[in-house]
Amino acid sequence: MSYKNFPMVPRVIFGRGSFNQLSDILTPKRLSINAPFIFLVDDVFKSNSWLTSRIPLSYDDKIIYISAAEEPKTDQIDMLVEEIILNSKERPSGIIGIGGGTLLDIAKAVSIMLTNEGNAEEYQGWDLVKNEAIYHVGIPTISGTGAEVSRTTVLTGPERKLGINSDFTPFDQVVLDSELTKDVPKDQWFYTGMDCYIHCVESLQGTYLNAFSESYGNMALELCKEIFLGNELTNTQAQEKLMMASWHGGMSIVYSQVGVAHAMSYGLSYLLGTKHGIGNCIVFDHLEEFYPEGVKLFKEMKTKHDISLPKGLCTDLTDKELDIMIDVALSLVPLWENALGKNWKKTITRKKLKSLYQKM
Amino acid sequence: MSYKNFPMVPRVIFGRGSFNQLSDILTPKRLSINAPFIFLVDDVFKSNSWLTSRIPLSYDDKIIYISAAEEPKTDQIDMLVEEIILNSKERPSGIIGIGGGTLLDIAKAVSIMLTNEGNAEEYQGWDLVKNEAIYHVGIPTISGTGAEVSRTTVLTGPERKLGINSDFTPFDQVVLDSELTKDVPKDQWFYTGMDCYIHCVESLQGTYLNAFSESYGNMALELCKEIFLGNELTNTQAQEKLMMASWHGGMSIVYSQVGVAHAMSYGLSYLLGTKHGIGNCIVFDHLEEFYPEGVKLFKEMKTKHDISLPKGLCTDLTDKELDIMIDVALSLVPLWENALGKNWKKTITRKKLKSLYQKM
Repeated sequence: MSYKNFPMVPRVIFGRGSFNQLSDILTPKRLSINAPFIFLVDDVFKSNSWLTSRIPLSYDDKIIYISAAEEPKTDQIDMLVEEIILNSKERPSGIIGIGGGTLLDIAKAVSIMLTNEGNAEEYQGWDLVKNEAIYHVGIPTISGTGAEVSRTTVLTGPERKLGINSDFTPFDQVVLDSELTKDVPKDQWFYTGMDCYIHCVESLQGTYLNAFSESYGNMALELCKEIFLGNELTNTQAQEKLMMASWHGGMSIVYSQVGVAHAMSYGLSYLLGTKHGIGNCIVFDHLEEFYPEGVKLFKEMKTKHDISLPKGLCTDLTDKELDIMIDVALSLVPLWENALGKNWKKTITRKKLKSLYQKM
Repeated sequence: MSYKNFPMVPRVIFGRGSFNQLSDILTPKRLSINAPFIFLVDDVFKSNSWLTSRIPLSYDDKIIYISAAEEPKTDQIDMLVEEIILNSKERPSGIIGIGGGTLLDIAKAVSIMLTNEGNAEEYQGWDLVKNEAIYHVGIPTISGTGAEVSRTTVLTGPERKLGINSDFTPFDQVVLDSELTKDVPKDQWFYTGMDCYIHCVESLQGTYLNAFSESYGNMALELCKEIFLGNELTNTQAQEKLMMASWHGGMSIVYSQVGVAHAMSYGLSYLLGTKHGIGNCIVFDHLEEFYPEGVKLFKEMKTKHDISLPKGLCTDLTDKELDIMIDVALSLVPLWENALGKNWKKTITRKKLKSLYQKM
């Protein structure tokens, strides 16, 4: 038996308004006046001076606004890396991702690809990255994905949707300022929060579970229940707690794995471009047989917050298209193994997946 | 408002038997064949080949056995550092602490003092360390202190008992192998476990509490209740869960503080050499007025495990001796402030502390 030696984010700052300390954090990390900090920022903040005016720019530092309307893609990473190299006198001092899971994953991938040759798609998989990434900072502006603590950056490539999982992927620094999440639209808040909730359910019911993951998973699950089913929290408290739930939910899956919802949601996302949070919700809603308690609670949360999920996504798909989704889902072996054990193939057949997808 | 940018242990491995992976972990960290790894090991393991035969020794690597019968002292650190420098051809590749809080704190302090001039006592306080410590690894063999995650190493010096609190203090690597805790004597298991429990109570009831600390504190507290008041865990489960409780309890106080029990226990320890775990228990047993719920539960745990605490420690002390204890306790301003707020001096007078100590 060999256990994973898990890399943790080595620096974390937590607190309402801690974003104001970004300059203090970055200044000692500047390599030279020619080595800029590159801020990758969700373009919803483009004309939001409340946030952008506090991004500390000096010398050749630059903000690049990026739309999170689509899931991050390998060729998007390659283009960003090329743009950064062409426009910087020296290799950057650091990459700072400001946004949700999409922006955080892009920041992680770009920081890896600035020091590793070739294209991003070559590194999709487990432990394929050779060189240390450049210094990278994650600043979530929406809570739930756990991207701020994970050792993956999930990318859609020409062949598949799969993470770059490596010891060099985690951020060197995370800033947890819940105030940055105050204007998240309600639907998005719910979908992304449910990503965290689903992480917990998949981790806690998985066969890979150990006492490490269990304690983090339980903590995140309790926080999710308090946030999504309770009535006692102020907005600020709920924002702070969801930020911690995302963190702990992310920690829970690093030592275990996600499961059925994530595997199937990757299929949806690959073929239809469905965003990760809502995709997980659409899938999870139909997984009673795998996660009976978890799905029951999920439906209660959905009702309480008056969320209606899109229906009929797969109604008009051809068999060929369904096959593509099924291929993507089936390729995620560790997720199935975690969910259902070594003999998962007995339960999960192409026919089974097809019938599940056709309900969605 | 400025928030602490907290350094986390950047690498952690968790699992029963993960101690066997020590060689894989250390090998890439060896600086040269003349730069040894120094293993500081609790001397209870001296003739325990089950453990010692698995310590991977190469080249000039060395085991130094250290008694944990007394709390670590600043001059003990200075002597160890001198011994290591005199007996090593080059600065060591790393220091590996194997033991309880005492050994872990010694390993942290030695690794700091190998790269910082002067004596250990000069660094007792907050953020006085100038140079990065050498690579250091913590391997707990008893659970509860949280020393494996904290940014302090608590030392008794000529002037005071106080930690070297710095960003360079935390371990670079922690190995969490609960199997190493299987032979801890019952009393010691209880006292050290209660250190964790008391961390949670002091953190959760403290004025410094935030959502970060609260989530870790709640998680550790739930685990403590399950371990010390429940009846459903196997020995292995209880050992694994207590290891995680210690970790989370330690994480909880990094962003808040400990409180009354720790402040007063430092006084006992300074004057009488009372070990930290039992000292905390002796003090906490008399703190109903500060932590009514916490003390009630503590007494239940004590009864359930048939623990009888020493009594009358302070009965024969002179006023001068009591004054020394009171001075040490009162000097720990952040602890009092966390426990009772900015106006703590209104409640905590010398007379009040004297009467409390005299009950112990």
